[in-house]
Amino acid sequence: MSKENNQILKNTNAKLLDEFNASIMFDKELYSQDIKGSIAHSKMLALQGIINIDEQKVIEKGLLKVKDEIENGDFKFSLEYEDIHMAVENRLTEIVGDAGKKLHTARSRNDQVCTDFTLYVQEKTKSIQNQIKELILTLTNIALKHTTTLMPGMTHLQHAQPINFGYHMMAYANMFKRDFERFASSYERNNYSPLGSAALAGTPHKIDRFKTSEFLGFTAPTSNAMDSVSNRDFALEILFNIATTMMHISRISEELILWSSYEFRFVRMSDEYATTSSIMPQKKNPDVPELLRGKTGRVYGNLISLLTVMKSLPLAYNKDTQEDKEGVFDSVSTIEISLSILNEVIKTMIVNVENMETACKIGHLTATDLADYLVQKQNMPFRTAYYLTKEVVEKANSLNKDISQLNIEEIRNSSKELENIDEEIVSYLDLKNSMNSRNSYGGTSTKQTEVQIENIKNWLESI
Amino acid sequence: MSKENNQILKNTNAKLLDEFNASIMFDKELYSQDIKGSIAHSKMLALQGIINIDEQKVIEKGLLKVKDEIENGDFKFSLEYEDIHMAVENRLTEIVGDAGKKLHTARSRNDQVCTDFTLYVQEKTKSIQNQIKELILTLTNIALKHTTTLMPGMTHLQHAQPINFGYHMMAYANMFKRDFERFASSYERNNYSPLGSAALAGTPHKIDRFKTSEFLGFTAPTSNAMDSVSNRDFALEILFNIATTMMHISRISEELILWSSYEFRFVRMSDEYATTSSIMPQKKNPDVPELLRGKTGRVYGNLISLLTVMKSLPLAYNKDTQEDKEGVFDSVSTIEISLSILNEVIKTMIVNVENMETACKIGHLTATDLADYLVQKQNMPFRTAYYLTKEVVEKANSLNKDISQLNIEEIRNSSKELENIDEEIVSYLDLKNSMNSRNSYGGTSTKQTEVQIENIKNWLESI
Amino acid sequence: MSKENNQILKNTNAKLLDEFNASIMFDKELYSQDIKGSIAHSKMLALQGIINIDEQKVIEKGLLKVKDEIENGDFKFSLEYEDIHMAVENRLTEIVGDAGKKLHTARSRNDQVCTDFTLYVQEKTKSIQNQIKELILTLTNIALKHTTTLMPGMTHLQHAQPINFGYHMMAYANMFKRDFERFASSYERNNYSPLGSAALAGTPHKIDRFKTSEFLGFTAPTSNAMDSVSNRDFALEILFNIATTMMHISRISEELILWSSYEFRFVRMSDEYATTSSIMPQKKNPDVPELLRGKTGRVYGNLISLLTVMKSLPLAYNKDTQEDKEGVFDSVSTIEISLSILNEVIKTMIVNVENMETACKIGHLTATDLADYLVQKQNMPFRTAYYLTKEVVEKANSLNKDISQLNIEEIRNSSKELENIDEEIVSYLDLKNSMNSRNSYGGTSTKQTEVQIENIKNWLESI
Amino acid sequence: MSKENNQILKNTNAKLLDEFNASIMFDKELYSQDIKGSIAHSKMLALQGIINIDEQKVIEKGLLKVKDEIENGDFKFSLEYEDIHMAVENRLTEIVGDAGKKLHTARSRNDQVCTDFTLYVQEKTKSIQNQIKELILTLTNIALKHTTTLMPGMTHLQHAQPINFGYHMMAYANMFKRDFERFASSYERNNYSPLGSAALAGTPHKIDRFKTSEFLGFTAPTSNAMDSVSNRDFALEILFNIATTMMHISRISEELILWSSYEFRFVRMSDEYATTSSIMPQKKNPDVPELLRGKTGRVYGNLISLLTVMKSLPLAYNKDTQEDKEGVFDSVSTIEISLSILNEVIKTMIVNVENMETACKIGHLTATDLADYLVQKQNMPFRTAYYLTKEVVEKANSLNKDISQLNIEEIRNSSKELENIDEEIVSYLDLKNSMNSRNSYGGTSTKQTEVQIENIKNWLESI
Repeated sequence: MSKENNQILKNTNAKLLDEFNASIMFDKELYSQDIKGSIAHSKMLALQGIINIDEQKVIEKGLLKVKDEIENGDFKFSLEYEDIHMAVENRLTEIVGDAGKKLHTARSRNDQVCTDFTLYVQEKTKSIQNQIKELILTLTNIALKHTTTLMPGMTHLQHAQPINFGYHMMAYANMFKRDFERFASSYERNNYSPLGSAALAGTPHKIDRFKTSEFLGFTAPTSNAMDSVSNRDFALEILFNIATTMMHISRISEELILWSSYEFRFVRMSDEYATTSSIMPQKKNPDVPELLRGKTGRVYGNLISLLTVMKSLPLAYNKDTQEDKEGVFDSVSTIEISLSILNEVIKTMIVNVENMETACKIGHLTATDLADYLVQKQNMPFRTAYYLTKEVVEKANSLNKDISQLNIEEIRNSSKELENIDEEIVSYLDLKNSMNSRNSYGGTSTKQTEVQIENIKNWLESI
Repeated sequence: MSKENNQILKNTNAKLLDEFNASIMFDKELYSQDIKGSIAHSKMLALQGIINIDEQKVIEKGLLKVKDEIENGDFKFSLEYEDIHMAVENRLTEIVGDAGKKLHTARSRNDQVCTDFTLYVQEKTKSIQNQIKELILTLTNIALKHTTTLMPGMTHLQHAQPINFGYHMMAYANMFKRDFERFASSYERNNYSPLGSAALAGTPHKIDRFKTSEFLGFTAPTSNAMDSVSNRDFALEILFNIATTMMHISRISEELILWSSYEFRFVRMSDEYATTSSIMPQKKNPDVPELLRGKTGRVYGNLISLLTVMKSLPLAYNKDTQEDKEGVFDSVSTIEISLSILNEVIKTMIVNVENMETACKIGHLTATDLADYLVQKQNMPFRTAYYLTKEVVEKANSLNKDISQLNIEEIRNSSKELENIDEEIVSYLDLKNSMNSRNSYGGTSTKQTEVQIENIKNWLESI
Repeated sequence: MSKENNQILKNTNAKLLDEFNASIMFDKELYSQDIKGSIAHSKMLALQGIINIDEQKVIEKGLLKVKDEIENGDFKFSLEYEDIHMAVENRLTEIVGDAGKKLHTARSRNDQVCTDFTLYVQEKTKSIQNQIKELILTLTNIALKHTTTLMPGMTHLQHAQPINFGYHMMAYANMFKRDFERFASSYERNNYSPLGSAALAGTPHKIDRFKTSEFLGFTAPTSNAMDSVSNRDFALEILFNIATTMMHISRISEELILWSSYEFRFVRMSDEYATTSSIMPQKKNPDVPELLRGKTGRVYGNLISLLTVMKSLPLAYNKDTQEDKEGVFDSVSTIEISLSILNEVIKTMIVNVENMETACKIGHLTATDLADYLVQKQNMPFRTAYYLTKEVVEKANSLNKDISQLNIEEIRNSSKELENIDEEIVSYLDLKNSMNSRNSYGGTSTKQTEVQIENIKNWLESI
Repeated sequence: MSKENNQILKNTNAKLLDEFNASIMFDKELYSQDIKGSIAHSKMLALQGIINIDEQKVIEKGLLKVKDEIENGDFKFSLEYEDIHMAVENRLTEIVGDAGKKLHTARSRNDQVCTDFTLYVQEKTKSIQNQIKELILTLTNIALKHTTTLMPGMTHLQHAQPINFGYHMMAYANMFKRDFERFASSYERNNYSPLGSAALAGTPHKIDRFKTSEFLGFTAPTSNAMDSVSNRDFALEILFNIATTMMHISRISEELILWSSYEFRFVRMSDEYATTSSIMPQKKNPDVPELLRGKTGRVYGNLISLLTVMKSLPLAYNKDTQEDKEGVFDSVSTIEISLSILNEVIKTMIVNVENMETACKIGHLTATDLADYLVQKQNMPFRTAYYLTKEVVEKANSLNKDISQLNIEEIRNSSKELENIDEEIVSYLDLKNSMNSRNSYGGTSTKQTEVQIENIKNWLESI
C-alpha cells in the first residue's frame, strides 16, 4: 500500500474509532445535570479553600453560559470531546480560561458521570411519579362515573361474574399505585451522592462531600468510593420499575383493543386516537393501544441489556458501563410518552354502557350467586351447591335463556333437590343484585367500589 | 382406527393433558403456606359465624394432620388433584368428612393461590435478607483484618491507585447492603393479604378480611379483588431483587476467579472449595465462583420469563399465570445456595498479602498522587500537572523502576519544570502514604475504611 | 466452637457444596447419549490398537448393562459421582474391573460432555421436527375442510376483509414450515463430533476422530479442539428455534382464546381440552391455549439464560457452562408437550362455521373491493376511489346495513360521482365473491388456498 | 377551560400523538429499499397492463429523483407523513402528479413494509457476512505467524496445557465461521418476496408476484399473504445471529482485556486502540474491547424486545410490529462497527511472544503428558497414572520448579513406582514436545494448526 493510502486508511479508522468510543451523541442528554453537578462541586471547592471565591464565581457564570448556549442551540457537539463532561469543561475553559481547568480538581470522570446519571434518574423518577399520579386520577374519575355500570367480569376471557366498570378501572388504579410506590422507594434508596468518590478510592484533597450532597439535594454522600463508581443499581431499578409499569400498561392496552373490537364494542377510542387504514376506508384501528402494548418489548429489552452489561464486571470502573445510558434514556422517554398518551386515550374514550350490560346476559354470570345462596341460606356444603347450580345452568341452556332470566318455576324444575326452593332465589340471580352482593372489603359492589375510590382519592391528596 | 385403539389414544392424551395442566409437581412447594392460609381462613369463618367453632377445630386439626403427613413423606402427591390446594383439601375431606368441604366457602382458588404465593415470597424475602446480612458480616470481618493490606486498585483491569484490601471488601459490603434494603422495601410494599378476594370480585359472604390478614402477618387486606387475583408484581420484584443480588455475586466471583489465577495469585480458594481436573492432576480450579457466575444466567432468565408471561394479559385471572411459580422457586433456591456457598468461600479463602503488595509496585500507582501534589502544593492547574506526571512516569520507565521507587534526583531530572521541586515530593510517591492520603469520606485510607466498617457494623446491629 | 460441632459444620458445608457442584441430578438425562458415545469411543480405541478387542467387548457389554440398570430403575444416582459421566464410568468399573478404567484414555470430561450434549440436541431436533410435521399435517387437513368457510380476516383485531378459514389455518402451516426448516438447518450446521478434542488441545494418542464421528452419525469431527470444548452455539440455536416456534404457538393460542370467548364464538375447544371453574360451574375455560401462551415465557427465559452464561467467557472450558443443560432440557420438554397438546386441541376443536360467516356481515368487509372496483373497472386513481368508498360506507351505516347488503339504488344514492355507476358493482360487494376475487398468488381465494394446501402436502411428502 | 386553551391542549395532544404514532424518524433508514420495491412494483404493473408503460417510466424517474433528493439531503422528513412509505409516495405525487397515485394499486402498506424490511435484512446479512469473512482472514493471518508460539492453554482460567497462539486464534476463526454459516442459512430461508400480499389476503388485481420477486432478487414469492404480513421471523433471525456473533466477540474481548493486564501482559493494544485516563496519566486502558464486551448487552436486549413484541399477537397485522425496526437497526449498526473495530484491534495488536512462553513454565502444564506417557508407554490404567503424576507435581513443588524443568533423577525420586522409569520420560515433559504431541485431528500441534489454517483458507476462497 502506498504511504498516502495508508494515511487515508489510518484516518478512516481513527474516525470510526472516535465514533465507537464517544458517548457525546447520547450523553449530551445529561448536560443540565453535568452543569448542576459542576456548580455544586465548584462551590464546595471554594468553601474548602481549594479554589478561591472569585474563581468559583467565574466558573459558575461560565457554566451557566455554557448551559444557555446548549439550550439555545448555539453549542456545537463534536465527537472530538468524547463525552458531555469533556465538552462542557472544554467550552468552559474557552470562556473563562485557566479557572476552568481547576474545576476538575478532586474529582474524576468516574464519579462525575455517576453523579450526573444519578441526578438524571432521580429527576426522571419524580416526573414519572407525577405522570402516574395523573393517570390514577383519570382512572379514578372514570370509575366514579361508572360505579353502577354493569359489565361481565372475566377470567380466562370468559364471562365469570357481573362487576361494575368503575371497579374494573379501580383494579388498574391500584396497579399504578404500586408502581408509584415502587418508584418512590427506589428514589429513597438511591438518593446518595457519588460526587467526590474520584477515580475509585477518594481523593487527598480536603473536600467536603456532605456539602455537595446537600447542594444537589441528596440525602448523604455514598459510603465507599469504589462501590460508588462501580454501582449501576439505581439505573437497573428505574429500568425494572419502568418495565413493570409498562407491563401494566400493556394489560390495559390489551383490554382496550379487545373492547374496541366489533365483537366486544365495550368502548370506542375517540376519533383522534383511532387511525384509519390506507387501504380499507371503513376501519377504525386502535393503533395507540397496540403501539403501547408493543413498546413493552423495548423496555424489557433495555432491562436485560443492562443486566447483561453488569454481569461479572470486575471492580472498579470499566468502559462497558458506558452502555448504561442509552437504554435508560430510551425507557424513560418511552414511559413518559406512553403515560401521557394512555392518560388521554382513557380520558377521551367512549364507554358503551349499554353494550356492556347486554353482554352480562350471556354466560350465566350469576351462577356463583346461586351456589353461594345454596350454601349460605340453605346450608349446603359448597361442593354440593356447585353441582346443583350446574343443573340450573343446563335448564337455562335448554330454554335458551340466561339464568338471570329464569323464573321460579323454571328453577324448581331443574332438579329434584330444588323443587321446593324458596322464591327469594330469583332475586339472587339478578345481575345488579349479584354485583352489589359482593360487598366484602375490596369487592365489586357499588358501595365497596366507592370506598376504593375514596381511599385512592385520599391517598392522591396525601402524596 | 379400531374402537379399542381409539380408547387407548384417548387415555394417552388424557394423561398427557393432566401432566400439562397440573401444577402439583411444583406447587407442592407451597404446602405449608396453603395450610397456614386455610387455618387462618377457617378461624375467620368461625369468628364470623359462617362455620361453627367445632367445625373449625375439626378443620384445623385435620389440616395439621395433612401437614404432618406431607412432612413425614406419607402424603401421596398425584396428578389427579391438579394442584396443591385441591390435594390438601381433598385429603382434608377424607380425614374430617363434610366439615372439610365447608372450608372452601367464601374463597376461590384464585385468591387462595395468590395468598399462598405471597406468603411464600414474603417468608423467603426475610430468609434471604438474613443470609445477606450474614454475608455482609463475613465481608466486614475480613475487611477488618485487612485495612492496611495494600493492593492495586484497578479500573479497566489496569492498576490504577493503591488501595487496601479491606476497602475493596467494603465495596461489596455496601452493594449487598443495598440488596438487603431492596428486599426490605419489597417486603413492605407487598405485604397485603389477597385472601377473600374470591374469584375476581369479592364474595357475598360476611367475611372479615382484616382478620385473616392479621392472622397471616400481613399489614392489611388488598384494596381491589380484581387487581389482587391478577397481580404478580410481588413475584416480579423478588425475581428482580434476586437478579440484582446475583449480579453482584457474579462480580465478586469474577474477581475471585481472576485473583485465583497464576497471573494474579492474590487469593487461594480453600481446598474444599477448589476442585481438581479429571485429566490434569496439578490443577486447582475455582469451580465454585465459576458456577456462581454462571448461575446469574438462570436468574436473569427467570425474570424475563415472568415479565413475558404477564405482558398484555387481560384481567382477571388467566391460566398463563400458573407459569409464575417455577421460576420464582428456582431463583429462590439458587440465591439461597449461592449466598451460603459464597459466604463459606469468602470465609475460608487464603489472602496472599505479600502478592498483593508486590503487585502494587507495578504500574506507577502513585502517578495520580504526583499530579495531585503538583496541584495542591505547587498550585498548578490540574491539566498541567497531568502532563508533568507523564514525564516522571517516562523517566521511571527508562530506569526500569516504578515511580514509587524513584529518588528525588531522578524526579528532578525528569523535566525542566521539576528541576527545583521540593524533596517532600518523594513521600507522596510512597504506596502506603498514597493509600492513606485518600482520606476523603468514603475514601480508601485505613482511617476511612475503619469508619466504613464501623458504620456497617452499627447498621447490622440496628436491623 | 467445639471440635465436634466444627466437624458437623464441615460436613454440612461439604454436603451443600456437593449439591452445588454436582450436575448429576439433571444431566442423568444424558445417560443414553453418554453410553452411546462411550461405546463409539471404545470401538475406535480398539480399532486403533489403543485397547485390545477383548477389552472393548467387555467395555461395551458392561456399558449396555449399565444402560439396562438405568432404564430398569436399578441404578442409584448419587451426588457422590458428581455427573452422569463419572457415574456411568464408575459403575462400569465396578462391573468389568480394570478394563473400565481404560475407557477414559484419550478423552476428557470436556469433550465427553460436549459430545453427549450435542448428540442430545441433534436427537431432539429430529424429534421436534417430526412433531412440527405432524402439526402442519393437522392444520392442512383442517384447512382442506374449510376452503369455502367465510370468516372476517382481521388487522388490528378489526374486521378487514373476508377470507376463508382454511386460508387462515394455512398461514400457521407456513409459519411452522419455517420452523421446521430452521431446525433442519441447525441440525446440518451443528452435526460435528467434538469427541477426541480432549481437555482443550487434542491428545497425543493415535486416535481416529473420523471413526467416532461416523459411528455416532456425525458429518465429520470438529476442526479445532479448543473451540469444540468452548462451543455452545448448538445449544443456543435449539433454544432460539424453540423460542421462535413457541412464539408462533402463542399466536395461534391467543387466537383460540379469542375465538372461544362469548364475544367471538368462532370455535369451541372439545370438552377434554376445556376445563371448568372451581367456583363457577357454568364456565368452560380455554386453559390449554392459555397455558401454551404462558409457556412462551419460560422458553424465552431459557434462551436469555444461556446467552448470559456464555457472555464474555474466556476460552477454553469454564464451570459456568455446566449451566447450559437445564434450560435446554426444559425448553425441549416444553416444546414437546406443547406441540403434542396443540396438535390434539386443533384436531378436536369444533369450528362454528355459521358464527364465522355471520360475523362477516359486520364491518363492511368488502369496502376494499369497492375501492378496487373503482380503480380497476372505472379507472379511478386509488386515492379517489378510497374517498368514494367512504361515502358508500357512510350510506350503509345510515341505513343500518353492511355494505355487502346494499342494493344498486342505495349505492348510487351515496354520492354524486356514483349516481350512474354500473349495476355490476353489487356483485363486487358480495362476501364470497370478494374472498374469491383475491386470487393473486398467496391470496385467500378458495382456488389459491387449495394451491397452498397442495404445495404443503407435496412438501410434507418430500421431507 | 376556555375554548382557546382547549384548542391549544388539543394541538399539543395531536402533536404528541403524531410523534407517538409516526415511524418516519427511524424507518427513513429504509428509503432505498422502499424505492427499489416501488420501482419493481411499477414495472410489474406495467407488464401486466395495470398501468401503461409511459406511466411506469414517469413513476420510475420520479422515484429516482426522490432518492436523489434524500441522498443529497434535500428531502424534508416530516412527521406529517407518518412513515417513509407515505413520505416517498407523497413526494412522488408532488413531482409526477396523478401517475404517482397509481403506484399504490394492488399493494398495501402491510406488504410494502414487509418487503422493504426483508430487503434491508437481506442486504445487511450479506454485508455482515463479508465483514465476518474479513475478520476470519485476519485471525488466520495472525495464526499463521504464531503456529510455534507457545502459550499456556487454560481451562477455568488456570494453566492447563501448552498450546500455540495460532491455535488459540483458530478457535475464534472457527467460531466466526459458524456465524457466517448461520447468517448464510437465514439468508436462504428468508429470501422470499411478500410484495403483492396486500393487506392480508392478496389482491383482485391481475398481478404477477413472481415478476416482482425476480426483480428484487428473491427466490420466489411467499406462499400465504396472511402469514407474509404477520411474519417477522427474518427479523428475529438476524437479531439472534447478531447476538450469537456478538457473544463470540465478547469472549475474544474478555481475553484481550485479560491479556492486556499487568498480570498477563500477553498482548498490547496498539496505541490508537488503547486510551488514557483523565486522571491517571500512566494508564493504557483497553477501552475498545471493554466497549465491545459491553455492547453484547444491547444486542441481547434487542432480541428479547422483538420476541416480546411478537408474543401472542393475533393475525394478521397489528401496529405493535412497528416496534420491529429500531432494534434491528441498532443491532445491525452495532455489529457492523464492532466487526470493523475488532478486525483493526486484532490486526494491530502487539503479541508478546516472550511473555506467553515464560508463562508456560508456571503450573506444570505437562502434567497430562506425564500421565499420558505412563498410560501409553508404560501401559498403566489412566486412573493410576493420574495419581503418580500428582506425586511428580508435588516433588517439583518441593523443589520450587515446574515439572518441565525436572531432570530424570528428580522424577525417579518422586515415588517408589517411578524409581526405574525410562529416561525418555524427560522429553515428554518438554513444553514444545508436549504441544506438538497433541497431534490428533483438531489438536494444537503446529502441524495440526497448519492443517486448520489451510482448511479455513480454502473455505474462505470457496465462498
